Formats: sequence, structure tokens, C-alpha cells
Amino acid sequence: MNREDVTDLIVIRKAKKKLSWANLAEIVGHSKEWSTAALLGQMTLSEAQAKAVGAALDLPDEAVEQLQVVPYKGSLPSAVPTDPLIYRFYELVSVYGTTFKALIHEEFGDGIMSAIDFNMDLTREPDPKGDRVRIVMSGKFLPYKTY
Amino acid sequence: MNREDVTDLIVIRKAKKKLSWANLAEIVGHSKEWSTAALLGQMTLSEAQAKAVGAALDLPDEAVEQLQVVPYKGSLPSAVPTDPLIYRFYELVSVYGTTFKALIHEEFGDGIMSAIDFNMDLTREPDPKGDRVRIVMSGKFLPYKTY
Amino acid sequence: MNREDVTDLIVIRKAKKKLSWANLAEIVGHSKEWSTAALLGQMTLSEAQAKAVGAALDLPDEAVEQLQVVPYKGSLPSAVPTDPLIYRFYELVSVYGTTFKALIHEEFGDGIMSAIDFNMDLTREPDPKGDRVRIVMSGKFLPYKTY
Amino acid sequence: MNREDVTDLIVIRKAKKKLSWANLAEIVGHSKEWSTAALLGQMTLSEAQAKAVGAALDLPDEAVEQLQVVPYKGSLPSAVPTDPLIYRFYELVSVYGTTFKALIHEEFGDGIMSAIDFNMDLTREPDPKGDRVRIVMSGKFLPYKTY
Amino acid sequence: MNREDVTDLIVIRKAKKKLSWANLAEIVGHSKEWSTAALLGQMTLSEAQAKAVGAALDLPDEAVEQLQVVPYKGSLPSAVPTDPLIYRFYELVSVYGTTFKALIHEEFGDGIMSAIDFNMDLTREPDPKGDRVRIVMSGKFLPYKTY
Amino acid sequence: MNREDVTDLIVIRKAKKKLSWANLAEIVGHSKEWSTAALLGQMTLSEAQAKAVGAALDLPDEAVEQLQVVPYKGSLPSAVPTDPLIYRFYELVSVYGTTFKALIHEEFGDGIMSAIDFNMDLTREPDPKGDRVRIVMSGKFLPYKTY
Amino acid sequence: MNREDVTDLIVIRKAKKKLSWANLAEIVGHSKEWSTAALLGQMTLSEAQAKAVGAALDLPDEAVEQLQVVPYKGSLPSAVPTDPLIYRFYELVSVYGTTFKALIHEEFGDGIMSAIDFNMDLTREPDPKGDRVRIVMSGKFLPYKTY
Amino acid sequence: MNREDVTDLIVIRKAKKKLSWANLAEIVGHSKEWSTAALLGQMTLSEAQAKAVGAALDLPDEAVEQLQVVPYKGSLPSAVPTDPLIYRFYELVSVYGTTFKALIHEEFGDGIMSAIDFNMDLTREPDPKGDRVRIVMSGKFLPYKTY
Amino acid sequence: MNREDVTDLIVIRKAKKKLSWANLAEIVGHSKEWSTAALLGQMTLSEAQAKAVGAALDLPDEAVEQLQVVPYKGSLPSAVPTDPLIYRFYELVSVYGTTFKALIHEEFGDGIMSAIDFNMDLTREPDPKGDRVRIVMSGKFLPYKTY
Amino acid sequence: MNREDVTDLIVIRKAKKKLSWANLAEIVGHSKEWSTAALLGQMTLSEAQAKAVGAALDLPDEAVEQLQVVPYKGSLPSAVPTDPLIYRFYELVSVYGTTFKALIHEEFGDGIMSAIDFNMDLTREPDPKGDRVRIVMSGKFLPYKTY
Repeated sequence: MNREDVTDLIVIRKAKKKLSWANLAEIVGHSKEWSTAALLGQMTLSEAQAKAVGAALDLPDEAVEQLQVVPYKGSLPSAVPTDPLIYRFYELVSVYGTTFKALIHEEFGDGIMSAIDFNMDLTREPDPKGDRVRIVMSGKFLPYKTY
Repeated sequence: MNREDVTDLIVIRKAKKKLSWANLAEIVGHSKEWSTAALLGQMTLSEAQAKAVGAALDLPDEAVEQLQVVPYKGSLPSAVPTDPLIYRFYELVSVYGTTFKALIHEEFGDGIMSAIDFNMDLTREPDPKGDRVRIVMSGKFLPYKTY
Repeated sequence: MNREDVTDLIVIRKAKKKLSWANLAEIVGHSKEWSTAALLGQMTLSEAQAKAVGAALDLPDEAVEQLQVVPYKGSLPSAVPTDPLIYRFYELVSVYGTTFKALIHEEFGDGIMSAIDFNMDLTREPDPKGDRVRIVMSGKFLPYKTY
Repeated sequence: MNREDVTDLIVIRKAKKKLSWANLAEIVGHSKEWSTAALLGQMTLSEAQAKAVGAALDLPDEAVEQLQVVPYKGSLPSAVPTDPLIYRFYELVSVYGTTFKALIHEEFGDGIMSAIDFNMDLTREPDPKGDRVRIVMSGKFLPYKTY
Repeated sequence: MNREDVTDLIVIRKAKKKLSWANLAEIVGHSKEWSTAALLGQMTLSEAQAKAVGAALDLPDEAVEQLQVVPYKGSLPSAVPTDPLIYRFYELVSVYGTTFKALIHEEFGDGIMSAIDFNMDLTREPDPKGDRVRIVMSGKFLPYKTY
Repeated sequence: MNREDVTDLIVIRKAKKKLSWANLAEIVGHSKEWSTAALLGQMTLSEAQAKAVGAALDLPDEAVEQLQVVPYKGSLPSAVPTDPLIYRFYELVSVYGTTFKALIHEEFGDGIMSAIDFNMDLTREPDPKGDRVRIVMSGKFLPYKTY
Repeated sequence: MNREDVTDLIVIRKAKKKLSWANLAEIVGHSKEWSTAALLGQMTLSEAQAKAVGAALDLPDEAVEQLQVVPYKGSLPSAVPTDPLIYRFYELVSVYGTTFKALIHEEFGDGIMSAIDFNMDLTREPDPKGDRVRIVMSGKFLPYKTY
Repeated sequence: MNREDVTDLIVIRKAKKKLSWANLAEIVGHSKEWSTAALLGQMTLSEAQAKAVGAALDLPDEAVEQLQVVPYKGSLPSAVPTDPLIYRFYELVSVYGTTFKALIHEEFGDGIMSAIDFNMDLTREPDPKGDRVRIVMSGKFLPYKTY
Repeated sequence: MNREDVTDLIVIRKAKKKLSWANLAEIVGHSKEWSTAALLGQMTLSEAQAKAVGAALDLPDEAVEQLQVVPYKGSLPSAVPTDPLIYRFYELVSVYGTTFKALIHEEFGDGIMSAIDFNMDLTREPDPKGDRVRIVMSGKFLPYKTY
Repeated sequence: MNREDVTDLIVIRKAKKKLSWANLAEIVGHSKEWSTAALLGQMTLSEAQAKAVGAALDLPDEAVEQLQVVPYKGSLPSAVPTDPLIYRFYELVSVYGTTFKALIHEEFGDGIMSAIDFNMDLTREPDPKGDRVRIVMSGKFLPYKTY
């Protein structure tokens, strides 16, 4: 049983138990964004968190143990994603990549926005012309070190 | 002179004239995010906008004309970007791709977040532990049509 | 049992029961185009639809449940398809891609044809020189938002 | 001067002369779909057609000659297109590829829809919820020969 | 049991029963070229043909049924084949590709040689300096349709 | 001036002088298949042949010299060809690759068909249902050496 | 049980029985180079050879049969090998490829060194500064046929 | 003028001056294998060697200087070479890669054959059945260091 | 049971037994860097080392035997790694690759740093602004041999 | 003149002026590692640094300006580097990637070693058995943020 098997098992048990990702996030005790990423095999749970999730989803011991191991990250099966929802985010990087670069360098100088010291919040934005997905990302700016 | 040549010319003239992307956005008359993307070859300017930019940057007539043609979009030279700043965004898609998918489907059902009916805002978020890059994205949710 | 297993099972049971895709579409209650895509793992069924299909094809409970989960879309095993029938469609994109782009922009301006708010109809077009495949596609035009 | 140079020249001259693809199609004497593909380097013009286009766009003799040579086809710079409009068509192949295959085989048996003995028509479909792009494709069905 | 499993089973049973591809082609009732392609998972057998092959090779019912389903074609595990015999054919396409194109267009005009309305014959050509493989291919010429 | 430039120059001069590949083959003194491949940059001409072609097409001295140098072979810009005519040959390798392998091994044992000690002949095959392209290939069989 | 399974089984049994590749080559009756390639799934054994190997390694009947079938060749899991020992050979092709080409053409004219009518010998070359691997390759020169 | 330009220039001047690679190797003062690799942009010449070559081939000063700079190595335009002569060497790595690995490890233990402390000799091997290319490679064995 | 299975088993047993990589390195009797690489399938253990590890982790006999076989090296599932920690090292090669090359050649001349006669040491570097990872690599310089 | 042109110019002028990277680093006023990376197009110089370098190497004004613009980073022409020196570093990532991951996580928990807040030092390590390249890398550990 590897980490992908654990992810598959979590998705199936979650469906069977009619739990939402928000429900599971409460059990984990973090935001729904971080918790979902963790349960989908991208983050590492503490022993207490893993056991709580295991209890809620009737996971076997080995799965509970695996949730505490740092996973080999990367959630997609191909370099260019085929799923239309996920592709739209890839498209944003493709179309706006140099724009991100130009504006962040203009504001901060040479460096990057951290994808590690990072958090985000995904919510529904009501709109009479059709509701919108609103995503707020916040990552620490890390300047290139000179030496 | 193709669109990439126009982009290169804009970057050079902008540097020589000590103009910021924010300055150019005022000339264009849209947000700095949209305007920068447009000037980097990803969006289409109106005739008035193109002429105003042309005047500010001393662009030749052919460049002004090209800015009004819908460009072949995609700003990066490889499928997986090598630039560290842009790669971090690709990494977010790779690590959080299935999380975006899970949470948007939980909130909205099957569909996508539009990358066309889309806007964003990139700002500095002051933080005593080091300032942060804050990006707010908003895209219309488009449900899959059944028929 | 993942979604691909469900797709394989549906194909085999359909063959054994001598049902056509048109028969299954009636059970689903949508067009044969949408229903086939759904049964081949690209769309999401409602609970009632999934149960009806499950009954018609003797699918196990887990398969019925999976049909109601939004799938990771993309039906092909390689970026350039090897199957001759499917390749011809890829070839149309390769040969006519810039033509689609030129004509849609001429008619509508900058934007895209939605592949989400989209429907299609595939029929036989009798022709004395050999019958033809006729495909009518209709997708909402989405203009690029300026902001 | 190779065929790509001719294509670039046509795009630029067309913009300068404020001609539409529909205007050029009248000069060519075929549908706007076929004519645009030809002028974008995918089809072969007759001598008369090439000269008429050359006259309308002030093309040099060598360009007029090149338009009569069968081109090396394929209009896109990468196997997976980056341009959002063109990508949507690739996405349709990716998502609906096996559906095209299933339905055409159900109707016609083993074989393909020709992309050579093929024509299409692209029009605006007025719709109160937002106009739609309507594309009608028609390709001869070619059964696999047994021998 | 998918189509690849059926192919593997056919290869093994054929070896065990000491049958040649020519023997199997007689049972199928077509040329050895078409029959071998069909048994290797690239063509579709009729019910009678599938049953005859099933009887000769003691195939299970499910395999016999699968042989009647139109397969997802493409027999090679990588885009550039690694097997030396098959690579030589790929090399012919690589080295002679533009020659095929130039000569067919010179003789027929713009269009293609069909790979669907196609047949071939592979025989031994005795030669005192070493026997040769002789392959005769014949494919219908399909002119590009103008419209 | 590299070999690709020589190829481009030959194609242009040939068009201007209204010469066919068959005409040029007579000047070269070999079959139209070999001669066309040579003039398209895949084979090496003798000094006499290069000079004869140079005279017929008014090629500069440097081009005549280059035609006598063994070229870096491979005539296509991508591993999977995009041109529909050439792709059909790639498709034949993809679909019939394992069939070629099975039948040649059945007839000759382990080894390959040479693509070097190889010749071919491409002709029009008149057919009331539409003329066909007929290609006869002949390559020496080379058995794997054991040692 | 496919050919890869046979290869895996041979490697495991060989380790268990403490046999060297040289020992197995004696049983096969050919050089250690050819025999190892054959046992690693790249060459075809005669019935007598397969049975001798089967007896020495306690292989099941099906494995003995598979060793007599011409395999789909290619021993590496990726186009650019990751194993450092094998990569060094790929590096030699990358760095010295054009040198091989220049020197063989200078000596022999246009053509290739056969990889089929080929043999090699791999030995230890004692050297006070550290022993060396010595590989002698010999392949028949095959001139390009003109016709 | 970069190193590739220098390589192109050397190839052209060598042809014009009717010099062989062996002639140039004498001028360089090393084997024809090493010298050819160096002149094709893969090795670094000393100042004396570069000047001698420059004099023999009338190279400009900048080219002479470039020959003394360590080049970015790798002589082929694609990961899998398309040229048939060079491809055969790639095929040897593909088919015999695991054999090289097995035999070198059997003789020497874990480690590699150096491609740096390496030399080779390429000669004609007369053979009544057709002359052969004989290549002797010798590379220092480097054991993996444990620590 | 292949080597990857052995690696998976080691990771799971290590977690269950609450052993650290440092603990296992003591059992192996080498540095934690080399030992971890070996246990993750990249190096070869001696019989005594393999048995000691097998005893500590309750590995089956076959796993103990496999640990003594030289593995096919390469620990990552894709050419460009997706895991953020490992990607940072790839990024260092991408960004600093030509810098490594320039500085090593300036200091040592043409040649390479061995990745075989190589060792490294990875430690925590306390720092008030946040602890740092310190990696010391040492590889023998190998000059290119001239001959 | 883009940034790559500036890099080429710097390399040529540096050779002509017989300056070492260490000399240029003194002019820049940072370590030879950072300065070389900057001059090879990977880092951003201040105005004073750019002017000092420009004076030392007689660079044109435009080059001096470009050195102050944040570059699009990534110094290698292909995803897997072909240059043997640089490949060895890629090989270290391939072979030791999971070892880096295991040991850093064991010491620090989930997170990464920064490639931005990073410095390194490359020196010669004298050794009687052959001098060694010693590289000390130090990157800040960044723990994954939970939220």
C-alpha cells in the first residue's frame, strides 16, 4: 500500500460516508485548502491528525502510518494536465507567466514568491452574471541572495 | 516584425525611458495586470490604446498595428518553465491541481473556473516576517452543459 | 476500482448485453453524445442516472457510486493520439487550428469558443459518393475580459 | 522566402489593407474556411487564384509562386497548442476522442472520418444568453478495407 | 481482459499450437497481412471469423467477443520505435518522407495516399546476393477537397 | 549556406524552371525516387551528377560542392510528422509495425529488412474507383549475426 | 508470462544458482556478449539452447518457449538512459556521433556500420593506472544502394 | 561567431581545400578520432594546435580563439538521432545497454566505464564478404566510491 | 520481487520499526548519505551488509539477495522532477549549470567532476535567521584524455 | 540585442582580454560563483556593477542596461543536459534525489532547501590520488507552512 493507494482509499471512503472536504478539514484542524492537499497526498499529517482521519474514514493502520510520511509530491499524471479544470490553471501560468514575473520584479526586485511559505483561500464570489471562483494566494517574497 | 519582436522592443524601450509597468497601464487605461499581459504579447489592444503606447515608447507604425492583432498566446518557451519565479506557479498547479479540482467541484459541481472571464490583482502584503506577494484571482464558474 | 475500471466494465457489459450507445443514452436521458462521453469517464452522472445505468448493465454498487464523482478528464493515452479515427480530429486541429482562430476572431473579436458550454450532434449524412459523418458543434463565445 | 514567410507577409498586408478573410475568400473564389486555411499555408492555390491574391495584397512574384506549391502542412508550433482558442479544440479531441470513436463505429463500423474529403462551415449562432460559435463539419466515412 | 491481453494470449497459443500466421490467415479467410494485423489488435473480426480463430486457438469466450470490437489502434509502445526491424520502417519515413510527398504531389496533386483504403503484400524476393523482403503497398489517392 | 539552404534553393529553382522531379532524375541518371531523395538532402551525389544538376538549376558553386558531401539525414522537423501525407506513412508503421515484424520473422527468422540496401518504385495504379498510389519496396534481409 | 517476466526470472535464478553470465554463455554455446543479450531479452535462442538454459536455471516450459520467439527489442525504460554506466555509452554517441559519421564516410563513403551483422568483445585491459574496459566492435559496412 | 559557426566553417573549408580528417589530425598532432571530435566542436585545442589548424584552413582569428575555449558538448540535434549511421550506434546502446551493464559489473563490480579517460580507434577490417568497420574502445573502469 | 519492491518494503519496515536513516547507516557501516542511497535502490550492498539490514528490518531472503545485485540506477519517475524539494536541486543545475562549467574549467581545464568517485555530507547549519541545509560535495576531477 | 547576446558577448570579450571569472568577480564585488552566474545571464547586476563590467569588457550601452534587467533564468538548451560536466550534476540529482529528500526530511521535517536564499563555494581540494572538486552548498531550510 503506497501513498497513491491511500489517496484512492480516502476518496472512496469519503464518498461512501458522505463527508465533504470541509468536514474532513475540521477533523484535521486546518483550512480546507491545506487539509485537502494533505489528504490528496501532497502534505504530511501529524500522528494525531492521521489517527483522527483514520478513525473518521475507517482507514487501515498502514494508511494511517503512511499519512505521516513526507510524500513524493506532484498530483498530476502528465506535465501538461488534460483535465479541463486543472488545465485552466496551467493556461494562466502559460499566458500570464511573464506578467507575474514582470510585476513581482517591479514591486520587489529579483526573487520569487514562495510556494512553500504559502497559503491560499478558495471561495465562492456571488455575482448576478454567474457566480465566480475567488482564489486568494499569499506567498512570502524571497529575494535572491547575493554573496 | 512579428509580435515577439514587438514584445522585445517594448521591454527595451520601457527600460530606456525608465517607465514602469504601472505607468504603461495608466496609458493603456486598464489594470496593471491586464495591461502588462497585453504589452507582453498576450492580449489585444484597441487602436487608441495601441497608438497611445506607441507614442509613449516611440514604437514604429508596424508595431502599433501588430498590437491590435489578436496574438497567438502562450508566453513561455517550454512546457515546464525553467525560470524559478514562474516555475513556482507551475509547482502550485502540480501540487495543488487536484486540490483546486476537489474544492471547486465540492462548491460548484462539475465545471471549470474560466481563464477568459477572469481578472486578477497582484499586490504587496506587508508582513513583519517578510513581505508577501498577494494575488487575488477571480474567474467565472462555468458549469458543464448537459444536452 | 477506479473510474477507468468502471469504463472498461461498462464497455464489456454493453457488448455482452448487445446494447448500443443510443440505447444507453435513452436510459441516461440525454443525447447520445453527452451520454457516451459520460459513460466513457468524461462527465458526471446524477444519482438517478447512475442507478439506471447500473441496473441496465449489472454494475456493482461501487461503480454506480463512482459514476457520480467528477472524473479526472482526458480520454486518450498519449498527447498525440495513435488511433487513426481519433488522429484525424487531431489533424484537423493541427491543419485548421490557425484558421479556426482567424475566423472566430474576425467574427467575434478576441476570446474563445467554450468547450464547457458546448454541445454537439453527430449524424450520418447520406451521399451517393459515399456517406459522410456530419458533426455540428456549438460552443458559447466567451470574450476575453478586460479589467 | 519560404512558405511561412509568405504566411507572415499575407497577415501583415491583409491588416494594412483592412481586408477581411471573407474578402480574400471572394478573391480566391472558395469558402472562407478553405481560403483562410490556404492563405495560412495549409492548402494549395491554382495559378489564377495565387495571382489574384498576389494582386490584392501586392505580394512579390516569389510569394505568388510559393502559393501554388503543395505546402508541408501543420499550422501549430507545438504538439499541444498553447493558444487558448486553439487549445479548446485540442481539449475537445482529448475529452471527446473516445466518444467520437464509439459513435462513429456504432453508426458506420470500423473506419475513419476523412480529414481530406472534408469541408466545414463556421458561423455565428445568435443566442440571448450569449452568441455561439457553430461549426458544421462533414467528412466522408472511409471503411477499413479488408483484403 | 482487454484487447492487449487477447493479443498476448493469441501469440502464446499460436506458439504452443505450432501454427503460422499464414495458417491463421486461412482460418480468418483474408490475406496474411490483414489477418495478422487483426490478430495483433489492429483490425476488427466478424463474428464468424472470431469464432473460427477462437476454436483454433482455444480462446475463452470473452476473447472471442473482444476480437469483434473495434480496437484502439496503434501497436507500438513508444513514438519512435526501439525494435530494430520496426525502426527501419520509421527510418524510411524519416529519410524518404519528403520524397514520398514530392513524388505523390507531382503525380496526383495535393492530397494523400489512404492508409485506410489500403492493402499490402509482403513476400520473399530471391536474390543471389541475399534474399530480399519485397513489400507492395497500394493505397487510394484522396485529393484534398476544395469547397 | 548549409545543406537545408541547398534543398530550399533547389525547390525554388525547380519551380521557377518548370522542371519536374522526373526531369531532374534524368539529369542525375538514377530513378526518380533516389534522385528526389538526394536533391531533398538525403543522399550524396557524385561530382558529375552535382555539376549537371547545378547547371540545370543555376546553382552556385558552394551548393554544387555541398551536394557531394554526405548529409546529416532525416527530412522531417518533428518525431511525429504533422503533414497529413507523410503522417499516413507514420500511421502505417504505427498500425502495421508489429505485423511487419511478425511476417518478416515468420518468413526469414530474426533479422531486419535493410533500409540501406533498399530501393523503391512509386507509380500510379489506375483504378475505376479512384486511382491508387502503388509503392514497391525491396530491401535486403539481414539476419542477426550470432557469435 | 511475457518476455520481460522471463528476463526477470533468469536474473533471479542466475543469482540464486551463483552462475555467471560466462557460465550461461557456455551453456548457450556462443560468446558471453551475444548470450547475455539473448538472455536479457534481445536475441532469439534455438530450441536446443533454450532447453539447455531452462534446465540450468529450472525455468518453466512457457519461459523456454518464449526464449525461442523473436523478441520486441530495446532494453531500456527511457529514450535517454538514467543508469550511469549505460548513460556513458549514450554520451559517447552524443559527443562522438558526428565523429563516427565523419570518419566512416571518409573511409567508406555514404553508408552505415551494420548493428545486425555485428559482433563485439568486451574484456578487461590491465593497466597500472587502473584497469580499463576494452570493447571491440565490428560491424559490416553497408553502402547506400543507388538505383 | 559561436562554436557551431566555427564547426560549419571548418567543414566547408576542409571540403574546399580537399583535406581529409586524417590530414587535419596530423596538423593537430593527435589521433584522427580525437582530432575530428575536437574540430567538430567537442574537444578543446591548445593555442598551438588552434593556430596550426587556423593556418591550414584560413580561419579568422576569432575562430582560432574559439577553438581554445572548452565547448558546450553534444553534437546531435535531437535526443534520438535521425541520421541512419549515428542511429545504429544509438540502437547498440538500446539493444545492448543492459548487456554492457551485466558484463562490466560481472567483471569489475559496481562502477562505470569512463567516457572521459577514454580513447578509441576506428579502422577498416577487410573481409571477403564485405569490409567491416572495426572500433576499439578503451575506457578506464571507475568503481563507485563507498564512504 | 524487483528492486523497487525492495525499496518500498524497506521504507515501510523502517517506519514501522521507528528506525532512522542514521540508525540504518550504522548497521550498514557507512555514512548516512551512501547508506540511504543504497537502501533506496541506487548502490550495491555486500553480503554482510545486506544480511545485517535484512535482520534489522525482517526482510525476506529474496530482498536480501536483491540488495547485493547492482541496481539499474535513477531514483526519479520523470526527467524533470515534480517533488518541490528535489526540483530545487534540478533548478540549481538549470540555473548554475553553465557556472559550474565555467568555474571548473577555469580551475582545472577541460574535464568533469566525477559522480562516481564522489562523496558528500549533508548537515544542519544553525543560523539565527533560520537553520540551513549544508551539503559538501567532493568529486575527483577527471581531465579529458587526449590520444 | 537580448540577454543571450549579452552573454555571448561577455564570453568572447573575456577571452580576448584574457580575464578570468575570478577577475570579473572582483570587478563585480561578489563571490566568483554569484558573479559568474550573473554574467552568464542568471542574476541581476546593480547599475554600478553593470557599468564596471561594461567598462572592463568594452560592452555597448545596451548590454550594460540589459545586465540590470531581471533575466528569464535557465542556462541550458535542453531538459536533460548533453554536456558531460553538467550532466554529472544532473546525474547526482537523478541518483541521489530521493536520498536528499529522505535525509533533509529526517533532519528538518517537511519542507525544502531554498535555491534562492542559497550560496555556494567551489574550490580545488588537493589529493595525492588526483585533485578533487569541492562544492559547499548552503541553502536556508523552508518548512511547509500549514494554515
